[in-house]
Amino acid sequence: MAIWVALDAMGGDFAPRATVEGALLALKEFSDLGIYLVGQPEIIASLLKRKKNRRLEIVPASQVVAMDESPIGALRTKQDSSIRKAFELLKEGRAQALVSAGNSGAVLATALFVLGRIKGVSRPAIATVLPTIKGSAVMIDSGANVDCKPHHLLQFAHMGMVFCREILGVSSPRVGLLSIGEEGGKGNNLVKRAHQLLSQSQLNYVGNIEGRDIYRGDVDVIVCDGFVGNICLKLSEGLAEALMCMMAQEIKKHRLAQLGFTFARTALKNFRARIDWRERGGAPLLGVKGVVIISHGRSDACAIKNALGTALGFVREEIVANLTEALENLPAVLSQGEK
Amino acid sequence: MAIWVALDAMGGDFAPRATVEGALLALKEFSDLGIYLVGQPEIIASLLKRKKNRRLEIVPASQVVAMDESPIGALRTKQDSSIRKAFELLKEGRAQALVSAGNSGAVLATALFVLGRIKGVSRPAIATVLPTIKGSAVMIDSGANVDCKPHHLLQFAHMGMVFCREILGVSSPRVGLLSIGEEGGKGNNLVKRAHQLLSQSQLNYVGNIEGRDIYRGDVDVIVCDGFVGNICLKLSEGLAEALMCMMAQEIKKHRLAQLGFTFARTALKNFRARIDWRERGGAPLLGVKGVVIISHGRSDACAIKNALGTALGFVREEIVANLTEALENLPAVLSQGEK
Repeated sequence: MAIWVALDAMGGDFAPRATVEGALLALKEFSDLGIYLVGQPEIIASLLKRKKNRRLEIVPASQVVAMDESPIGALRTKQDSSIRKAFELLKEGRAQALVSAGNSGAVLATALFVLGRIKGVSRPAIATVLPTIKGSAVMIDSGANVDCKPHHLLQFAHMGMVFCREILGVSSPRVGLLSIGEEGGKGNNLVKRAHQLLSQSQLNYVGNIEGRDIYRGDVDVIVCDGFVGNICLKLSEGLAEALMCMMAQEIKKHRLAQLGFTFARTALKNFRARIDWRERGGAPLLGVKGVVIISHGRSDACAIKNALGTALGFVREEIVANLTEALENLPAVLSQGEK
Repeated sequence: MAIWVALDAMGGDFAPRATVEGALLALKEFSDLGIYLVGQPEIIASLLKRKKNRRLEIVPASQVVAMDESPIGALRTKQDSSIRKAFELLKEGRAQALVSAGNSGAVLATALFVLGRIKGVSRPAIATVLPTIKGSAVMIDSGANVDCKPHHLLQFAHMGMVFCREILGVSSPRVGLLSIGEEGGKGNNLVKRAHQLLSQSQLNYVGNIEGRDIYRGDVDVIVCDGFVGNICLKLSEGLAEALMCMMAQEIKKHRLAQLGFTFARTALKNFRARIDWRERGGAPLLGVKGVVIISHGRSDACAIKNALGTALGFVREEIVANLTEALENLPAVLSQGEK
């Protein structure tokens, strides 16, 4: 039986062309996938041409939320937006997952409004998989919550741990708190208090880590607020790009070196592609009652196809059920944070 | 006439060997430099052997502040520490600048206690020069203040602007505020309110920048709180290292490429060295009444020599006088932030 995913066909810088093309690619690649293309029917139909597929269905939504629109405003005034309709399909159980490359603030707000949160979660968070020297690590939150309380970070840690265990297959994920010194006393007020909560938790908490440890691979889950997480992700992306330019400048001086440079550049390009997981396969919004995959605003058809594949994996691995179970079984630890 | 610098001979992971050797190197390189080596006289004398120099003087201080000691505790209980004595030389006017690779929290606390702040400055901040694709940019604050108010960021912007103008020679530095989106409404509470203050200021304020813009070189001054700044610096350092490893893995597969890799590695190493300015030449603590250069804890003799050179440059350029003048002439803008 097919797993149906609601795709926000109107969301993203290159929508609806990229979303429709991505959906067609995904149908070819994943034989158990069904897609609801949610958005303006005429436009979507014109892009589909006459391609018919039993696993593809257009669901009409007359409105589009702009990329820079106020999330709360959109929630209030655009009740027939593609984002809203897609979430309703998920809520009704017609779809088992949702993918959107649209206004991520609006996706977050609508997720909270339509789906609601898993018990024990105050704030849903975005989990991003980063490449490290030794493999992969999960950074949570990578952008959903800019102002956090200590118990939010504790909850992020729990969600990141479950995600890491279920999706990356790490049996006892090591959790680190991003700060500016290894000692527990180092950091801003938020991090100092979060450190205390994490130290008392049953997590495999290794303590504070510093910026230079992120890519070292000694922890599996990196906990931070969404402001810091987002800056770290974008800095990494930008630095990889800048280093490529600096290397090119260096190497121009040495003609013999240009051959080797090709390979160095490949490594950097791979890194850049791996670092922005949203661009590759979307990043999950953890903590809401449903599988929600947020893709990068500038997703192309291939990125959309990958995000649909990610959604499929999350449904198969029953990540939401596992998260719900893990968080419900930890009332003592989480309620400490609620004080 | 020589410019005298007070060097905390006991500060840093490799002190006093690195500091004493660094001082000797600096005396050779800078003919107008005089150095007070502040610390335990027997140890310093034994390292100097019999080298006499009219431009080198030992100033006794019986106590040493450990790298992980509480700054406030050290200030209270170690009144004869090398840090404290060095600041007193500066305060008395015997020295015109100070260099320390010791406990940076203790250096900051002692600077505030002994020297005091320039009028108009609530919080001194550390300014770090970063390499960009197009040249250099100043990141302020890179670690002195972990919890900030909006008007602190406004003051950092003003100090960064003066530093950039006087030391990097940029006539009208472009100031950017580090956030998670380009629109003014994006960011955490701190950044949103700082954006309003900066927009009303007379600075050449270009608005929010994102993590990926830091190394792009489109702004000259990057304003952020010290928690975020420190994480960005250390992340950059760690990422350059991680990319080197990833490139090495990629290149091992291609024997022909290894020649070129040497040059790529050189570029990355150069970047790493350039990124940690404290390691190269120390970073100034701006906003206190005196020239204070903070060096990296792991400074070797060469880094100490460079930091002494930086101190010399700051005295010559009269950076403190210029900062004082610039900040005193801006009472309206700064007092807006004090509300």
